[in-house]
Amino acid sequence: MKHTKIKELLSSDGAKTGVVAKGWVRTFRNSQFVALNDGSTINNIQCVVDFANTPEDTLKRITTGAAISVMGDLVESQGAGQKWEIQVKSLEILGDSDAEKFPMQPKRHSLEFLRANAHLRVRTNAFGAIMRVRSVLAYAVHKYFQDKGFVYVNTPIITGADAEGAGEMFQVTALDLNNLPKDENGYINYKEDFFGKHTNLTVSGQLEGETFAMALGQIYTFGPTFRAENSNTARHLAEFWMIEPEVAFNDLDDNMDLAEDFIQYVIKYTMERCQDDLKFLDQRLADEEKQKPQDQRSDMTLLEKLKFVLENNFKRVSYTEAIDILRDSTPNKKKKFQFPIDAWGADLQSEHERFLVEKHFKCPVILYDYPANIKAFYMRLNEDGKTVRAMDILFPGIGEIVGGSQREERYDVLVEKMKVLGIDEEELWWYLDTRRFGTAVHSGFGLGFERLVLFVTGMTNIRDVIPFPRTPQNAEF
Amino acid sequence: MKHTKIKELLSSDGAKTGVVAKGWVRTFRNSQFVALNDGSTINNIQCVVDFANTPEDTLKRITTGAAISVMGDLVESQGAGQKWEIQVKSLEILGDSDAEKFPMQPKRHSLEFLRANAHLRVRTNAFGAIMRVRSVLAYAVHKYFQDKGFVYVNTPIITGADAEGAGEMFQVTALDLNNLPKDENGYINYKEDFFGKHTNLTVSGQLEGETFAMALGQIYTFGPTFRAENSNTARHLAEFWMIEPEVAFNDLDDNMDLAEDFIQYVIKYTMERCQDDLKFLDQRLADEEKQKPQDQRSDMTLLEKLKFVLENNFKRVSYTEAIDILRDSTPNKKKKFQFPIDAWGADLQSEHERFLVEKHFKCPVILYDYPANIKAFYMRLNEDGKTVRAMDILFPGIGEIVGGSQREERYDVLVEKMKVLGIDEEELWWYLDTRRFGTAVHSGFGLGFERLVLFVTGMTNIRDVIPFPRTPQNAEF
Repeated sequence: MKHTKIKELLSSDGAKTGVVAKGWVRTFRNSQFVALNDGSTINNIQCVVDFANTPEDTLKRITTGAAISVMGDLVESQGAGQKWEIQVKSLEILGDSDAEKFPMQPKRHSLEFLRANAHLRVRTNAFGAIMRVRSVLAYAVHKYFQDKGFVYVNTPIITGADAEGAGEMFQVTALDLNNLPKDENGYINYKEDFFGKHTNLTVSGQLEGETFAMALGQIYTFGPTFRAENSNTARHLAEFWMIEPEVAFNDLDDNMDLAEDFIQYVIKYTMERCQDDLKFLDQRLADEEKQKPQDQRSDMTLLEKLKFVLENNFKRVSYTEAIDILRDSTPNKKKKFQFPIDAWGADLQSEHERFLVEKHFKCPVILYDYPANIKAFYMRLNEDGKTVRAMDILFPGIGEIVGGSQREERYDVLVEKMKVLGIDEEELWWYLDTRRFGTAVHSGFGLGFERLVLFVTGMTNIRDVIPFPRTPQNAEF
Repeated sequence: MKHTKIKELLSSDGAKTGVVAKGWVRTFRNSQFVALNDGSTINNIQCVVDFANTPEDTLKRITTGAAISVMGDLVESQGAGQKWEIQVKSLEILGDSDAEKFPMQPKRHSLEFLRANAHLRVRTNAFGAIMRVRSVLAYAVHKYFQDKGFVYVNTPIITGADAEGAGEMFQVTALDLNNLPKDENGYINYKEDFFGKHTNLTVSGQLEGETFAMALGQIYTFGPTFRAENSNTARHLAEFWMIEPEVAFNDLDDNMDLAEDFIQYVIKYTMERCQDDLKFLDQRLADEEKQKPQDQRSDMTLLEKLKFVLENNFKRVSYTEAIDILRDSTPNKKKKFQFPIDAWGADLQSEHERFLVEKHFKCPVILYDYPANIKAFYMRLNEDGKTVRAMDILFPGIGEIVGGSQREERYDVLVEKMKVLGIDEEELWWYLDTRRFGTAVHSGFGLGFERLVLFVTGMTNIRDVIPFPRTPQNAEF
């Protein structure tokens, strides 16, 4: 018999006879009240079991985590907190769950414990909510760009190019490491590898994306990217998903406008569609905040923070202005920064970004026009000869969420820069072709998807917003 | 000055003064007519240059591939084939394109030549159309599942599990291959590698996906998967995108219904939104067919084939029935099959699948209930003890496009099967947990995205429907 999703049952517009629900038992009280969840919503449906007429053996098997199927009537609930419940007429145990052994008992588990059980943590309220929010956010990303006529491009994951320098790379090989083919000089002979050369996992699809933007006009990527850096922090993953739009004829101002509009859209879309999940996560964060000393608590709740981002323009500040603000700031004068700011040209550290966003401006900030020598080779050089048309978007509690730039479209300037940095022109012949044939102003940015999910869910460790996190010493599942 | 996309200009509902268009020159005729394309549509807009009042030097630089900006009036076109054209008032060369050197001249290029220029081939009509269709198909995939309440799950790309056995795997490592750490027995010490163990690129997200389906009910993945097989064919890639839905409480019939409904939806959605691109690809295929001898030509045009799939149910045939049909078939009797079919239990080869789909049924076919010993360990064993609840969907011209099954939800049966096949229980402890705690009937399938794009675009080589194909000896770009 066809079952109905619990989300549908809970939003029914009337009583119904003979409904079937299937799901997993969250709790079972008084041998009578089953809280049943099927993942379609964070809310459970209460199933009232006729315990007098249910075999003792069946009642015993209604344990947390068991899969059951119930048939009965959907009626108005007498209890508080739910409009509808099921008066059960028949109940079937589909799959048992040994109460002694099932790790996800209805109590508070540590996030560390839940990470070690990433295959089961999604059966908790919090992780069910996070994963549904993540999914809706991902869809909002596609919807935003597709509605604007952007073309989704799957740039390669395995790449022979390693010139971008965005970070340490993982190597990909089909060679037998216990029996490596060597050349006459004793070096590994990559000609015998699958691709006939040394290959890595991509750190960014930007360069390939640019070639498509220079034909299709507006494109975006949304795929996994990788860093082999030994960063054991709450903000870094070895494998994460990145969104990279690239637009022909856009300058840096257009790029900032796009990024701001995009972020506001996807947050708004998700707030409208994930109300129950976000309400739960809002409460979860509020409970967590209560554990903190008063002066470390956030001024705003999660939902207030999200609304704030929607309703306020991001503050646009040049790097040079930011340096002035930081140099004159109290923490700098009182030597509270680990890296004191005394001269133009310094790379901004997390502590500086947090000061600007959380203390000084108290809103999302777009920093732009950075010194050329702390940014990537492909960023467009300004007339001053020392800054480039880069922009980073900084979010409260998250830090950098977007990094982007107007690209250097001038062939000669780009080649000169590559020479200075020792980047091989021959390896990037195809990238340079975009500047050889019909070059034009263009811009783009990269947004780390998990950092966005962190912000929207109010979680604080990036390992908790991706199904199976990959970090140093951890590739379980 | 803000420019307007050519797609918008071409669908204008009236004449307009002072419009700006930016794009790349496709052709320039009679020193007067520029065919300009910006990737927003396959259609060019004709820009009529006032050649008497345009400097000779500028006219010379209007070459195929050059990026230009034009300002002028949108007026009704006198010429055939377009409703609107731009009477140019001013024209700016943004980026030159040396006519002697630009590889994408307006003539017919071989597909091999275009593959070697994958960064530029998207500037041709055919590849622009293919990439736009691919993008819309990808969006249709997300829209279908999200509208039905499925949760999008990003299963891991780097995996420590290699038990699934779907194919040869690429190894991922951060070790220095010229200086590998060894253990006391002379073997590589993977404890010193980034993840502290041997890791590979995923061949499927199914097993991880199942753990999420058993909590969220309905999930789907859509991400890159990898095969290190040395298959240099028109149907195989080393890196390709796969869609894998997984649904709790679905049996094999539900699974077939879902797959069929899904495929019909995404094709319909794309046909409605990519009319111009598909019309071009339809004509392209028709032109190609004309080169073939009469008896090898297809009965249907591309658009007819797509419509046929929408309007006809897929034929569902058991493996056992299929074997009977094949055994009694003319090619089998006349010994035309390379692999003759004489007994139940034979694995079906491409030639058999093609006979069933293209000659016998002449429509998409779903084969189900395969012999257990030619299918994967996780497929549910039937009551007969020798077949499993597997299903493959076969498409004309493509072969297998979907492979799926009802999963073995019974812990004991699954463990027994793993023992027989020598699959390590300890390595898959987390997978087995789904059967230990609240197991239930569930089903899913995998669809190779590029094979779907092949079918919808009418292309014949899978390297032509992904931006930058990865195949043996090829990881350029």
